[in-house]
Amino acid sequence: MRSEAKRMWDRLETLGRVGRTAAQGLSRLAYTAADKEAQKLMAGWMTEAGLRVYRDSVGNLFGRLEGRAKDRTIMVGSHLDTVRDAGLFDGAVGVVVALEAVAALAKHCGQPAKNLEVVVTCEEEGIRFEKCFVGSRALVEGLTDAELDAEKDASGISLRQAMTDYGLDPRRVREAMRSDIEAFLEVHIEQGRVLEAAGVSLGIVTATAGQIVMEVEVLGRQDHAGATPMDLRIDSLACAARMMGCIEEYARALGRPAVATVGKIHVEPGAVNVIPGKTRFHIDARDGDPERQAKLKVAIEGICTGVAVERGCEVRVKTFLDERPVRMSSDMINLFKEVADAEKIRWLEIASGATHDAMVMARRLPTGMLFIPSRNGRSHCPEEYSDPEHILGACNVMTEALRRLAY
Amino acid sequence: MRSEAKRMWDRLETLGRVGRTAAQGLSRLAYTAADKEAQKLMAGWMTEAGLRVYRDSVGNLFGRLEGRAKDRTIMVGSHLDTVRDAGLFDGAVGVVVALEAVAALAKHCGQPAKNLEVVVTCEEEGIRFEKCFVGSRALVEGLTDAELDAEKDASGISLRQAMTDYGLDPRRVREAMRSDIEAFLEVHIEQGRVLEAAGVSLGIVTATAGQIVMEVEVLGRQDHAGATPMDLRIDSLACAARMMGCIEEYARALGRPAVATVGKIHVEPGAVNVIPGKTRFHIDARDGDPERQAKLKVAIEGICTGVAVERGCEVRVKTFLDERPVRMSSDMINLFKEVADAEKIRWLEIASGATHDAMVMARRLPTGMLFIPSRNGRSHCPEEYSDPEHILGACNVMTEALRRLAY
Repeated sequence: MRSEAKRMWDRLETLGRVGRTAAQGLSRLAYTAADKEAQKLMAGWMTEAGLRVYRDSVGNLFGRLEGRAKDRTIMVGSHLDTVRDAGLFDGAVGVVVALEAVAALAKHCGQPAKNLEVVVTCEEEGIRFEKCFVGSRALVEGLTDAELDAEKDASGISLRQAMTDYGLDPRRVREAMRSDIEAFLEVHIEQGRVLEAAGVSLGIVTATAGQIVMEVEVLGRQDHAGATPMDLRIDSLACAARMMGCIEEYARALGRPAVATVGKIHVEPGAVNVIPGKTRFHIDARDGDPERQAKLKVAIEGICTGVAVERGCEVRVKTFLDERPVRMSSDMINLFKEVADAEKIRWLEIASGATHDAMVMARRLPTGMLFIPSRNGRSHCPEEYSDPEHILGACNVMTEALRRLAY
Repeated sequence: MRSEAKRMWDRLETLGRVGRTAAQGLSRLAYTAADKEAQKLMAGWMTEAGLRVYRDSVGNLFGRLEGRAKDRTIMVGSHLDTVRDAGLFDGAVGVVVALEAVAALAKHCGQPAKNLEVVVTCEEEGIRFEKCFVGSRALVEGLTDAELDAEKDASGISLRQAMTDYGLDPRRVREAMRSDIEAFLEVHIEQGRVLEAAGVSLGIVTATAGQIVMEVEVLGRQDHAGATPMDLRIDSLACAARMMGCIEEYARALGRPAVATVGKIHVEPGAVNVIPGKTRFHIDARDGDPERQAKLKVAIEGICTGVAVERGCEVRVKTFLDERPVRMSSDMINLFKEVADAEKIRWLEIASGATHDAMVMARRLPTGMLFIPSRNGRSHCPEEYSDPEHILGACNVMTEALRRLAY
């Protein structure tokens, strides 16, 4: 392993020991002692690399290489908070790569024209608190007082209280907003199996998919399973099964990156020998393109209405969430492509199915994102794994991209 | 309303007040005080009709019209125990009709050649104890000591204890077995909507359907709903939905009385944004003919295996229950048809989707069963309703059938 790859790997392993619970699980929830300890490790490595370390009012950690123009900053980073029973790579890999890249530039290229900042965003996963992207939103959108009080963790501790306990002053959260960031870049693991299946070592993200969450309630007629012939029943679950089949077929026909998933279903009364009178299921539908995503939503609604009519059921479709896809900057996409080609790294354009800090930033700033393949597509679990060679490749592309942007 | 119809209706209403809980619910569980009170009412009406009343060692209640041949008995009846929140008709209508028929024969035709007995079986529903048909099984199969101790109600009271508390001597349960019964007849509500949909007022039961209960476990791959394209996922719920669709289509194509129902489904992990790695569902499949039912079972297994292979899932199919259909006596079916035609009552042959005392008896004895239409197919609920004219029609057919059998 090359020394850069070895250092990044060691750092991932060191970070992976912080927040380790019992057996194999890793749980480093936002604004906890484990989270602080991980940030402290990063702060130490940033200092070693000659970066000026500081923390903002919401808890984002920065390592800054001062440029000649004080008010122009290129920012690169990711998060260190994790889900419960997490793996070593989600978030951490982006932080470690960002530091490695900026440290290399500091060492070999000296002072940049623009400031180069490594950022560790303070809360991305939305696990302890339901609100996610606290750190990145604070940087470009600003947090509100209301949400600091409204968000509570499982023990009833508010986001405001958690920040205070962490040593921050929540009255000053608005001060975290930045106007000097010219571009934001992030490396992250893919969390899917697209890159692996294509046999490439790098993904260049074109967009983060939006997300539509719908609840479909199908009302049939509850009847005796033995005494009601097939031709006289109005079975809400059989109706829902047909809807699910049509929705799956439609999303498949639409082609990548369109997806539609039913992950949750509930039938009433839920007895073996009773025809379900009511079935409720949730659909998660996404696409990387706003128009296609809107089309997907209309199609799903149409399928549910159509199948219900065909089977004499009533149906109610509620949309809980309708987040539009966010496109990455085409300048950043092109920059990554050029650099990856120059480095002879095989890449693939990919829409991110998951959401990331880069999505929040891309709404306001020119933003670019790289994906590292995930072995077997596994993520948010201890089996999460990415190849050190792929990490090094992403680091090399990121280093050169930052050089072109900041020098 | 004719006087017989009025008397039966009044008795149904009187019985319906016994075991009434709070609002509209009626709960008359086996071997409870309410159950005893209902039997006491029946015993009084039997005595009024000139029948000799006695109870056997398991708690079946009889009203006997002595025939000239002491060892040959024609038995007619049903049950008085109910499910929770029951209606007025399930069970009770069969008991009330049986008494009305035998009382009419006693009054107008005098002593029969064979004994005529009205029976109130003591436990049919299997609600308080899981074992159902305690009364009818005791008559023709015999209960075992082991099951008296094994069966426990929700408070941990054994069937043996419940019998003792009811005033019975469980050591003598074997004495309930009878060898003198030549035929058993039962009237019951349909509990489905077949007769109503066909516009007839009487059902002549050809068989009680068997019941197969299968559990299907589909194993796919748990993946991120956003990051896993449609063409790379192995979705256990989408696979199960396809199985359900094929099973429904097959049962429908097989035609009445074949049914297949999925009433229960569970997905794991059951989160909106996660492709379900595991889906488990239950199938209840029935038919009135043993060969057709066996075919249905093989087809369901084949569908599950085939769809799983097509979609790269693993599947495990477990059969929990495989009860064969039981045919009613063709002699009794023909007798009912002749009598109904003579009475100018419009009837339909029907396979019972639900199980009844008559099913237990039909395994051992020539048995016949009549169905009265259920309004909207409702049963096991306070909305249960049958037309007094239909009840009277069934009573007339039963009376004449009993006359032909016993005189």
